[in-house]
Amino acid sequence: MIRALAFDVFGTVVDWRSSVIGELVDFGARRGVNADWAQMADDWRAGYVPAMDRVRRGELPWTRLDDLHRARLVELLTAAGIDAPDAEIDDLNRAWHRLDPWPDSVAGLTRLKRRFTITTLSNGNVSLLTNMAKRAGLPWDCVLSAEIFRHYKPDREAYLGCAQILDIAPDELMLVAAHPGDLRAARDAGLQTAFVFRPAEHGPDRTLRRPDPAEFDVSADDFLDLADQLDA
Amino acid sequence: MIRALAFDVFGTVVDWRSSVIGELVDFGARRGVNADWAQMADDWRAGYVPAMDRVRRGELPWTRLDDLHRARLVELLTAAGIDAPDAEIDDLNRAWHRLDPWPDSVAGLTRLKRRFTITTLSNGNVSLLTNMAKRAGLPWDCVLSAEIFRHYKPDREAYLGCAQILDIAPDELMLVAAHPGDLRAARDAGLQTAFVFRPAEHGPDRTLRRPDPAEFDVSADDFLDLADQLDA
Repeated sequence: MIRALAFDVFGTVVDWRSSVIGELVDFGARRGVNADWAQMADDWRAGYVPAMDRVRRGELPWTRLDDLHRARLVELLTAAGIDAPDAEIDDLNRAWHRLDPWPDSVAGLTRLKRRFTITTLSNGNVSLLTNMAKRAGLPWDCVLSAEIFRHYKPDREAYLGCAQILDIAPDELMLVAAHPGDLRAARDAGLQTAFVFRPAEHGPDRTLRRPDPAEFDVSADDFLDLADQLDA
Repeated sequence: MIRALAFDVFGTVVDWRSSVIGELVDFGARRGVNADWAQMADDWRAGYVPAMDRVRRGELPWTRLDDLHRARLVELLTAAGIDAPDAEIDDLNRAWHRLDPWPDSVAGLTRLKRRFTITTLSNGNVSLLTNMAKRAGLPWDCVLSAEIFRHYKPDREAYLGCAQILDIAPDELMLVAAHPGDLRAARDAGLQTAFVFRPAEHGPDRTLRRPDPAEFDVSADDFLDLADQLDA
């Protein structure tokens, strides 16, 4: 029996790439500078895993994703020769708080919420996720984050901490994610798993393939299909 | 400037006493036993502060409110000579997940949410608060709890932890509570404070008096009045 659904957020619920490119384009227009903003968005995102891994390995103390994002942003702006006041960099860094949902996300979550407890389980910090949900109308029952467990996914503690704080068994919790690696780690921790295909996550030039549907408990085209498959 | 409102929950948002008495009456009817259920509700609630204080003083390791509630419930049932299976005691203990809101709570929170981030800041554990919100339709932006900070209110760490995880300054956060002691501790930690008068919290036989309104930043009759005063 599934009692709660925990959602990966970046890429699964929201289209980070289009949103961040849009924010970078606006920033460039305000500053009167130009760059390959799509490439910068990809490079910004690509900095995320190595930075988290330094925290996961204990080379850095616990550091919020906002702060990891900001350090990477400063590196990228410096490399591009772009100067900006701190307040403007802070604002640009909060682009990750203003990501737009995929077209089916709000409607699908609203349906799934009728039947299940729905929570975030993201590496984004709580304030990022809260601000994002408020702006985008994501109807979470609660906002859980790696920040609360002081362990970034795919650390086992993040998945087990989520089940524990919801006071349910790991196999009563289903992780919903567009990323096989996240789902495999959740499965190894004893959770149920739902893959959702988000072929546009990395933009038009990267073709994503579906993983073998037999690998996960559910494999869905989007959140409405997930709601159908879970009778929500 | 206020950016977020953090709400005490038991007594401030929900009418714990009427709800718990109702659950005890139903339990008694199911078990075919009788007792002074109103007195038992009051005794159950009265066990909460001393039990939390044992955690706050470090005499007990971190213990969720659900578990503190359950230990007290078993004491009370034993003292009353009432026997029940574990599963039934578990269910009765979850009465605290099923508390009804005051009549103005949902409408007031809905208005306040338009202008501010609204969160719980309760000694109730996350699963209790999440289940309560889902049942009662409380539209929180996020669910924060003493459990996340591993400090029960009125420990300073709970108030400061709430501001920190929301990524705002303590004086950008306002605690909303019906209890002067909670508000005073929040004020001492640098938060803004809103007193809400809930004269029926302890039932018809206990007359509550309003504290001096000058002591807090806002003093309101209910959440609609609070929304009026905060222009929400």
